[in-house]
Amino acid sequence: MKCQLLMTGNELMTGVTVDTNAAWIAEKLFSIGIDVNKKVTIGDQLSDLEREIQQATEDSDLLIINGGLGPTVDDLTAQALASACHRTLVKNNLAEQHIYHWCSERGVIPNAANLKQAILPTDADIIPNAIGSAVGIRLNYKNCLVLCTPGVPREMRNMFEQEILPFLLLTFKGCAGSYIRRLQIFGMGESAIQQKIINEYSQWPSAIELGFRAGFPTLEVKLTVHSTEDLPIRDIWEKKLRTLLGSVIFGQEQDTLPKVLIDLLKEKNKRLVTAESCTGGLMASLITAIPGASQVFEAGFVTYSNVIKHRVLGVEQQALDEYGAVCETVVIQMAKGALEKSGADYVIAVSGIAGPDGGSTEKPVGTVWVAWGEKAQLKSQEIFYPSERKMFQLFIAACGLDLIRRELSGITERPRYFSS
Amino acid sequence: MKCQLLMTGNELMTGVTVDTNAAWIAEKLFSIGIDVNKKVTIGDQLSDLEREIQQATEDSDLLIINGGLGPTVDDLTAQALASACHRTLVKNNLAEQHIYHWCSERGVIPNAANLKQAILPTDADIIPNAIGSAVGIRLNYKNCLVLCTPGVPREMRNMFEQEILPFLLLTFKGCAGSYIRRLQIFGMGESAIQQKIINEYSQWPSAIELGFRAGFPTLEVKLTVHSTEDLPIRDIWEKKLRTLLGSVIFGQEQDTLPKVLIDLLKEKNKRLVTAESCTGGLMASLITAIPGASQVFEAGFVTYSNVIKHRVLGVEQQALDEYGAVCETVVIQMAKGALEKSGADYVIAVSGIAGPDGGSTEKPVGTVWVAWGEKAQLKSQEIFYPSERKMFQLFIAACGLDLIRRELSGITERPRYFSS
Repeated sequence: MKCQLLMTGNELMTGVTVDTNAAWIAEKLFSIGIDVNKKVTIGDQLSDLEREIQQATEDSDLLIINGGLGPTVDDLTAQALASACHRTLVKNNLAEQHIYHWCSERGVIPNAANLKQAILPTDADIIPNAIGSAVGIRLNYKNCLVLCTPGVPREMRNMFEQEILPFLLLTFKGCAGSYIRRLQIFGMGESAIQQKIINEYSQWPSAIELGFRAGFPTLEVKLTVHSTEDLPIRDIWEKKLRTLLGSVIFGQEQDTLPKVLIDLLKEKNKRLVTAESCTGGLMASLITAIPGASQVFEAGFVTYSNVIKHRVLGVEQQALDEYGAVCETVVIQMAKGALEKSGADYVIAVSGIAGPDGGSTEKPVGTVWVAWGEKAQLKSQEIFYPSERKMFQLFIAACGLDLIRRELSGITERPRYFSS
Repeated sequence: MKCQLLMTGNELMTGVTVDTNAAWIAEKLFSIGIDVNKKVTIGDQLSDLEREIQQATEDSDLLIINGGLGPTVDDLTAQALASACHRTLVKNNLAEQHIYHWCSERGVIPNAANLKQAILPTDADIIPNAIGSAVGIRLNYKNCLVLCTPGVPREMRNMFEQEILPFLLLTFKGCAGSYIRRLQIFGMGESAIQQKIINEYSQWPSAIELGFRAGFPTLEVKLTVHSTEDLPIRDIWEKKLRTLLGSVIFGQEQDTLPKVLIDLLKEKNKRLVTAESCTGGLMASLITAIPGASQVFEAGFVTYSNVIKHRVLGVEQQALDEYGAVCETVVIQMAKGALEKSGADYVIAVSGIAGPDGGSTEKPVGTVWVAWGEKAQLKSQEIFYPSERKMFQLFIAACGLDLIRRELSGITERPRYFSS
């Protein structure tokens, strides 16, 4: 079967926005056995849109259009689709209901711009949007199934997972499936993993596709087979890989570091406190973004200035004066102070130099001290990770979460991100 | 003039690789006044490539092809280009010299795969590649200029900056540029803005393109003109728009809320402290992600549990017991406690119900109390924003930053996100 993506929006044409939707959609389609043959990206010009839709509905079995469903004048997808498929535009009652409902939840009355989103091609079905005002559109024209999705990534992803993937699985159930096992990894790079696998297994079985997806700061190793018959062999090689890579694997499928950490804390009925300097609240924020965090997260101290480290966490002024904020003594005192103030069971404390300024020859940008564990047995270690500020913060915050994960999981192996 | 990009490579079709080349090229072209009309991405199938090149050379004045110049069997660009433009393939002497030179520098002898890269369409010019073995291709066909570039980002970027941009500037020096003014907005939705503009100005000048870019939680309004002659009229309408939209405009061009807030604090030489419950450290994290935040950010308290609100910030136990954590009394006490503990000048404190659990009939998910300002004159207000947890946190954190921005800017107008 032939599948085309049509990505729309002027913002995709100037290079200001890197299109991540297209790759995300292609990957999801691939996971259910649908290969994308062609991707076209164009701006918000009605005639261009019409022409592309016409061409694509002739060439393809499945056309997925992304963007242009919003309330403004440059949102033209419904209009272009109607014209390309020789339909008129009419008010869709279900879409209108959705807009009224969405607006009333927010205590506002739909205006003309909102209601424009209910004007759809005749005979189009709507695709529910659980989090935004714009419904999706589903339409059959000639031999092509056309699906229109919103451009806002969160809305598109939600609609795709909740509505479109199940629908496609049902509609195209004849197509070959892909069965993917994802292993989530932190603390080892893509090339190091690859080298390790090559060194150990020169004969990787051809039935299993080995793939990598380099996120940041975590990455994913994927084992894909294309038939249920190959599932047993995939399981065997998954086990081998788990043994080979060991404790850098923190989870599987949709697991994230904060999610895994929260589950471990729940399981052991323990509560966590954070004391952050260079990560500036990012650890606390990553944890509290997960529903149910309040069951295990007690408090976070963002002690950004030295005055606050002393005043709030009781770090000795002498230590700060003598060694500076980035040292073992201070970070251990931060950890102890946070445990005492909060009464939590576990702590992670970090103090480092995020940059771009603030480094010195002795302590260059990227130098970090971490302290973690329980009150009775605090541990501490130096990490050196010089990089751009936001990447530094993301990486060090992930190290913090990972150290508590390792502690709670009883892992004694030393993480590879320690400096010495 | 019409310009199309053709991105090639199977790796771009599965979603494993996010295509950053296209955005990079589009931005470079845009900077010299060339708008990309269309981007097409296809895999490495000869017939698809031929067809796309044929179509594009008919439709466009400039076609830039990326990828497929390498030594392997799936590198098909030269072959497809020759076929689409009715040329034969011949050995290009300059290309061959380049390959010999490139190989000798690395102490190797060119093999058949290397030398394949010297087989180009007749009458094609080569574009020098300073860092890789694959030369680029330049060809005129019908009224279209075709430029082929390597897929490796480093090689493509180098070739583009060293060779292609200077060439295009010379060739298309007459073409019109785009001149964009971006206004950054928080606290008013896309449809509300549009409605307001339509109501006020039924006659929007045709020389100025009005565009929207819906980020979350902020959005961007863009005024684009295509000639320097239209800059004065753009300035006039920018002023009108600023008057019409007022205090929801927090910045322009690349401004972000935390950046603008930090600049204001620096300007007034004031320091900020945050006290967060439902946003869980996100406000602190957004601020400290900006280099130089340490000059104005004193501390952040993530007082997630009630015990901590009492113990660390001195919120009265009685108030917590009587009214719960989400109320005016508690949030004001959080703000006062944070100011006292930190000695900062300004504070923002938030306490709310992020969900999905924890709501009640009286205080449903989405209910938030905020308190902000200076010690002498703390203000407080309720906000109601029911939505998915992460969106809720992002929106409320932005409200917090925005409230201090308004305070420091002397804005007395009431923000639209207050509930009552």
